[in-house]
Amino acid sequence: MDHALSDAYHQIAQNAKKAWTPLSVLSTDKKNAALKAMAAAVLKNEALLIQENTKDIEAAEKKGMAKSLIGRLVLDSKKIKQIADSIRLIASLPDPVGREISKKKRPNGLVIKKMSVPIGVILIIYESRPNVTADCMALCLKSGNSVILKGGSEALYSNRALYQVLNTAAVKAGVPQGAFGFVSTSDREAVKSLLGMKDLIQLVIPRGGEGLIREVAEISKIPVIKHFKGVCHVYVDKDADLKKAAAIVLNAKTQNPGVCNALETLLVHQAVAAKFLPEVGRLLREKNVEIRACEKTRASLPWAEKATEEDWAAEYLDLILAVRVVKNLEEAIAHIEKYGSQHSDAIVTRNKKAAGLFTQSVDSAVVLVNASTRFNDGGEFGMGAEMGISTDKLHARGPMGLEELTTYKYLVLGNGQVRV
Amino acid sequence: MDHALSDAYHQIAQNAKKAWTPLSVLSTDKKNAALKAMAAAVLKNEALLIQENTKDIEAAEKKGMAKSLIGRLVLDSKKIKQIADSIRLIASLPDPVGREISKKKRPNGLVIKKMSVPIGVILIIYESRPNVTADCMALCLKSGNSVILKGGSEALYSNRALYQVLNTAAVKAGVPQGAFGFVSTSDREAVKSLLGMKDLIQLVIPRGGEGLIREVAEISKIPVIKHFKGVCHVYVDKDADLKKAAAIVLNAKTQNPGVCNALETLLVHQAVAAKFLPEVGRLLREKNVEIRACEKTRASLPWAEKATEEDWAAEYLDLILAVRVVKNLEEAIAHIEKYGSQHSDAIVTRNKKAAGLFTQSVDSAVVLVNASTRFNDGGEFGMGAEMGISTDKLHARGPMGLEELTTYKYLVLGNGQVRV
Repeated sequence: MDHALSDAYHQIAQNAKKAWTPLSVLSTDKKNAALKAMAAAVLKNEALLIQENTKDIEAAEKKGMAKSLIGRLVLDSKKIKQIADSIRLIASLPDPVGREISKKKRPNGLVIKKMSVPIGVILIIYESRPNVTADCMALCLKSGNSVILKGGSEALYSNRALYQVLNTAAVKAGVPQGAFGFVSTSDREAVKSLLGMKDLIQLVIPRGGEGLIREVAEISKIPVIKHFKGVCHVYVDKDADLKKAAAIVLNAKTQNPGVCNALETLLVHQAVAAKFLPEVGRLLREKNVEIRACEKTRASLPWAEKATEEDWAAEYLDLILAVRVVKNLEEAIAHIEKYGSQHSDAIVTRNKKAAGLFTQSVDSAVVLVNASTRFNDGGEFGMGAEMGISTDKLHARGPMGLEELTTYKYLVLGNGQVRV
Repeated sequence: MDHALSDAYHQIAQNAKKAWTPLSVLSTDKKNAALKAMAAAVLKNEALLIQENTKDIEAAEKKGMAKSLIGRLVLDSKKIKQIADSIRLIASLPDPVGREISKKKRPNGLVIKKMSVPIGVILIIYESRPNVTADCMALCLKSGNSVILKGGSEALYSNRALYQVLNTAAVKAGVPQGAFGFVSTSDREAVKSLLGMKDLIQLVIPRGGEGLIREVAEISKIPVIKHFKGVCHVYVDKDADLKKAAAIVLNAKTQNPGVCNALETLLVHQAVAAKFLPEVGRLLREKNVEIRACEKTRASLPWAEKATEEDWAAEYLDLILAVRVVKNLEEAIAHIEKYGSQHSDAIVTRNKKAAGLFTQSVDSAVVLVNASTRFNDGGEFGMGAEMGISTDKLHARGPMGLEELTTYKYLVLGNGQVRV
């Protein structure tokens, strides 16, 4: 990469850091007013946004991008309205900054308060859907963080237009210039350069395919919060309500198969396999789901393909499901430990003891009982929008909303105390 | 490093991971019983511990190590009793695992619980004081984490003896074998090898000199929580109670100058400099504190040395203090932002508005009002022992006690819900 470009990214990061000091103490009212102005600007600039989006769509069609991916790229009136609605929703949520997380008085009279504060400068590296640009800008503003946006080349025109419309409105409404940064290149070296700026950037959140996320995690000198993939399981216990189990499996696999919280492997207790599998198999087949199964499953579903070792670890993101019959709950837990991705795993059972053992033993960000894995989602958790989903252990696990975009600071309030 | 050694460290990490599954669900009673057995074993093995410690002391004396450092290395009856007391204190604290952090019911009937759970395997890399070995084993056991201990070569005999005594007692009391790992080498390659094992180890905590910590942070592929150094400030405002200010400055600088929360730079508002500096200077001089000062300070303290640019960023860890007169509160805040280490910074003032602006603007882990910086400490915060102090922004900031050694997991409890 040439030096001029490298300097340009450094300047973006420095501006973001500089803007953070006033941004971190911006009042809730000012932040919400800016968010409302941003939502209005998105609606007002619909024609421009659609015009710029058309350039991305045309380029994608020329490249022969898959239709489902192009669908995620499109900005139309409906999606633009959704973007504005999402920003307004974020404006309506409580300010995550300035919360008193805990307070205690020590025997020496010191009062120790743990207060939520913004983190600093956040770099988000993402692919495809342009609405991520708007969601991340709104979430970071509300949580008092500067944000540097590095979207994918396939959405460059759309992302840049959204950024310009939103940034202009925000700055006009009093957001410090530089709080929103935009990297308008598809140059990989740009990302590498940004991931080394550990004195300017405090957190990196990559969102997209596993390849992108692994690359970011490998290179970054800055802490990264991420999930590589979602190999999600539903385990149907011997004490399951089989009708509910079938509905959960259908929903988790087919309601939106291309996302990280969709079901990839179904585990069935051997005691209910002969009863459950033919019925759920029929329902899945109606929805055109291809099944890759163990031998015991194929006794009930002879039309299923034979699963290979790779299938147990696969994130299909498609209408394909791996199915395995297990001896018992313990074997289900061991399977999930061996092949899972610590994302979203569910048990279906009426047995409280089995549910307790499952939720305690499965080491995943979100463990569900009698519910679809699709509920691991910021919106479904009542967080408003989400910045991403984490399968990491530190700082944030599961959906990341506004609170997860804050850290804390201790205030120690005394009247002259010294240590003895 | 030869392959046999590398394999040995890999084996330690694998054992720690394997032990973690049963350890993470060990009952509070069993953990506390094991801690009490560990405390008893330390007292019972006093003679052995002192004998092994003597080998480290003799080697240190032969090497010509400074007396103050040798003092930190010594294990005598009193220190051994303190170690046992610290383990018993940790046994008496509430279990940080299994806390319901939050609970909400969604409109669709789903109950979402955020529960505290252990993190996994923690690697601690530390220097000097052998009591760190015992503290970390006790804190990790109580919080349900496996721990791998890598102490400094200067305390190898002491650390190994403590580890063996504690591990034997713990395993006998039901702690899974492998939950405590010990790396008995001073080989730097050992550390490098461990810091690459991101699939086995979830968190690294380095404690010691800045050089060690920077090296660990640079090499590690595993998340690191740390502080590089403590360049701590006391700012004496124009509205300060000057008597209290002098007591705080004396305490923060001289009560234990060799630690990270000791005062390094004193900032004084120009309006009180002529009154405050001669008195505090006299008191500091009585305690043999050397002063390195700006020109304005030297008008009041002509005996002070002239400060250079390096002094403002220096962590002396010694009886040396940098002193600067500032125009106002804003200049004090700007000085701390430029030269500080985001560790512990205090304001002395009776003015609530000044205190509010200082605590809001200073971006440090612990910000104090009218109290000594020495209070940034797990014990002083009521956490029992501490695993370290963090100046990072993610996961834990300030003193790290038992709660900071946990993460969380979401439990989603339904009765057949699917996503629409």
